[in-house]
Parts: sequence; structure tokens; C-alpha cells
Amino acid sequence: MDTLPVTDRTRVSRMPQRQVTDRAALHAVLDAGLVAHVAVVRGGVPVVLPVGCARDGDALLLHGSTGGGLFREAAAGEHVTATVTLVDGLVYARSTSDSSMNYRCAMVTGVAVPVTDPGEKEAALARITEHLMPGRWDEVRPSTKRELAAVLVLRLPLDEASVKIRALPASSEPDDGESREVWAGVLPLVTTALAPVPNDDVPPGTPLPVSLDLAVAQLERSAPLVR
Amino acid sequence: MDTLPVTDRTRVSRMPQRQVTDRAALHAVLDAGLVAHVAVVRGGVPVVLPVGCARDGDALLLHGSTGGGLFREAAAGEHVTATVTLVDGLVYARSTSDSSMNYRCAMVTGVAVPVTDPGEKEAALARITEHLMPGRWDEVRPSTKRELAAVLVLRLPLDEASVKIRALPASSEPDDGESREVWAGVLPLVTTALAPVPNDDVPPGTPLPVSLDLAVAQLERSAPLVR
Repeated sequence: MDTLPVTDRTRVSRMPQRQVTDRAALHAVLDAGLVAHVAVVRGGVPVVLPVGCARDGDALLLHGSTGGGLFREAAAGEHVTATVTLVDGLVYARSTSDSSMNYRCAMVTGVAVPVTDPGEKEAALARITEHLMPGRWDEVRPSTKRELAAVLVLRLPLDEASVKIRALPASSEPDDGESREVWAGVLPLVTTALAPVPNDDVPPGTPLPVSLDLAVAQLERSAPLVR
Repeated sequence: MDTLPVTDRTRVSRMPQRQVTDRAALHAVLDAGLVAHVAVVRGGVPVVLPVGCARDGDALLLHGSTGGGLFREAAAGEHVTATVTLVDGLVYARSTSDSSMNYRCAMVTGVAVPVTDPGEKEAALARITEHLMPGRWDEVRPSTKRELAAVLVLRLPLDEASVKIRALPASSEPDDGESREVWAGVLPLVTTALAPVPNDDVPPGTPLPVSLDLAVAQLERSAPLVR
């Protein structure tokens, strides 16, 4: 199935022309994000927190702790919503009304299932590590049983999801009397890495790991296309 | 009042040592963010969408449209939660269990009030523009009455808020037998601007506006301190 079903919960009401229903677009947005903003309802009030995430096939893996309140409730079968957003640019139109941002946004909603099987949990953690810090899994020692027990991984299926993308120049109404002498366009925004900062206990001469280069390459792949 | 009250809703349960209750820290995180992830509850299910925002004194202004479902419900008095997150770095520990991210995160929860008075609404839009695109308000034509009517600005008071910050090197348990020969440290992440992309209708020779420089300077101010 290559198209996302549009439900009452995933229909975009504002700027519906920006809704994308291609499942490949959903995957691409999720693959470009490092964190999802995950919400659960607690006592009628939404709680929203950033959570490290990674797509694994047709599910979004959410990385948390058994000590986190958000995750306790999500693991108990409460409905969760996870939104991944990339802010790709500031859009300078010739009026503030037409000014905007370019962005990619994916919202996934559903019931998340804790990954409990030890082998599946380790595979899920490897997947999350591979997404957030590619190459790192093989550079460090294996997790201990105690460490694995303290981690909670939730698997949120991509069954109900919406994607909204703006990747356009500045728009303007043709007849609103704006001066063409005012510059209009897009200031593209990207996430970039600065020089790595070693811990104090790293012996001088320790080589930088390949995983740092892979992270930088991944950030470059996640950046929007600038025309 | 310089300290944020900690309520059941704003108490950090996971890694409580990372909770910051200084109101100045709340302001600093909100001032560094371009978008808030805003949640409302719809039919028992949270909806989470990114929204352009700006702090205005002791409130967070949320910029939306009268056509947006999220905003219709928020404006009707539903409880909303807005979370602003800056991902400041990938933390490469010597185990995946100790690996982490550096971040600044502020969550504000409460009932948002629509700004209806035309003068206050224009002032709120100027404040939002000044935050997202500093200097732009004075470069473009004024908004028309019709444009102002199509915009919805919500004012969410900063009465109930929590701040969580990690700005540390990689941690490691002293006795977990990790090799010091494995590099550990932080890969700092920042949001930067690429070269501006003009609209096709910008006449050749049109000077770049000062607001683009101001946006770049603002991004630099929003970056985390790297030791």
C-alpha cells in the first residue's frame, strides 16, 4: 500500500493543498528527524515531550525509559501522537500575511506497543542507534541486561498518519499592490554539526570515530533540497 | 517571581536533576525556538502540530489561522500544551545506554486566549514577526484588515511550565569496564542558514534586506554554548 488513508484525524484542514498522502513521503520525513514530539493525555490535559525516534519499516520506534511518565502511560495503551518536524526555511514574502516557513511535518497517531522480547528490544535499540548515531552500535560495548531492562522502546505503527510539506518560494497575491523592489524569497535553514567536543578523559591522540563522519553525512542527507 | 512553581503536571519524573525552575531559563529556551509543538485533545486523542511562536513577556504567542482545526479548538478554551525544543548535540558515550542528546526543552500548558482587539492583534503579529524574522515588519507593507481577520493569535500564559536541559559531556558509570580508547564526547548541532534563494520575480540587483542578516545573527544567538 503506497497511499496513506486520510481519516478525520489525519485530514489537513488548514492549507489542504500541502497535505501529502504518499507513504514514501511519510517515510522520508520520519527518516530525516532525530526527535518526535510525543503527546499523551494525562487527566484530560496533553503532555508533549521530545523523544528520540527512528523508523523501522512501517512503525516508528520511540526511545524512552521505564522511569518516564509519558512512557508509562503510553505503554499502558493510552493513545499517543508523535509528530516529527523539520523547519526548512524562513519564507520572506512581501507582506507579513504571506510570510511563512518551509517545513516537512509528519504526525503519527495510534496505540504504541512496548517491545518486550529481549532479542527484539536489542534489535530495536540497534535500529534507533543506527538512525541517531549511524555506525556507533559497533564501536561501543554491548549493553548489559540491567541496561536493557531500564530502557523502554515503544513501537507506534504507521497506520494513521498525515504529512504536510511546504517547499515553495514566497507567495504573493497578484493584485495586492506590493512593490517588486522589496526582496522576497527563502532563507533555507539546515541542522549542521560543529566540531566534536571530546570528553576530558579521552586520551590525546585518540582517533575520531567513523560514526561522527556518518552522523554529519546523515545530517546532509536530511537537509531539504534547495532549488 | 523568578522561580517556576512545580506542579504535578510540570514535575519532571525522568532525570529530575535536569529540571530547571529558573524563569529566566524558560524565557531563554522559548526565545531560542522558532516553532512550538502545540497539542490539543480531540475526541480523547492528542493532536500535535508545529506552530510559529514568540514569547511576549510572560506569555507565549502562537501564530495560527482561523481555518486551522487545532486553533479552533484551542481558541474555544480547550487546554493546550506547547513544547519548544532545541536539539543541541548528539552525545557519544562509550555505551549506547549512556548515549544521549543535549537539548533544551520548555513545555507550557494552560488555556490559551485569542487576541481579538485589533490593535493588540497587530502588536502581537509584530512581536511574532520580530522574533521569527527580525527587522522584516518595517520592510514590508502593512497588513490589510482582511489579512488581519484571517489570522488567529493565541496568548498562552507562562503560568504552568517546565524546563529540562541537558548540556553535559558524555557520562559513564565509573565501574562499567568501558575502554578509554573509545572516543567519547559531544557532536554539537546547530541550526544555520544557507544562502538566501530569491523569488523568480525579484529584479536583478535588488539588495538583500537587512532582515536576512538579522535572522542569521538571531540563529547564532540561539545556538548552545559549546565549551
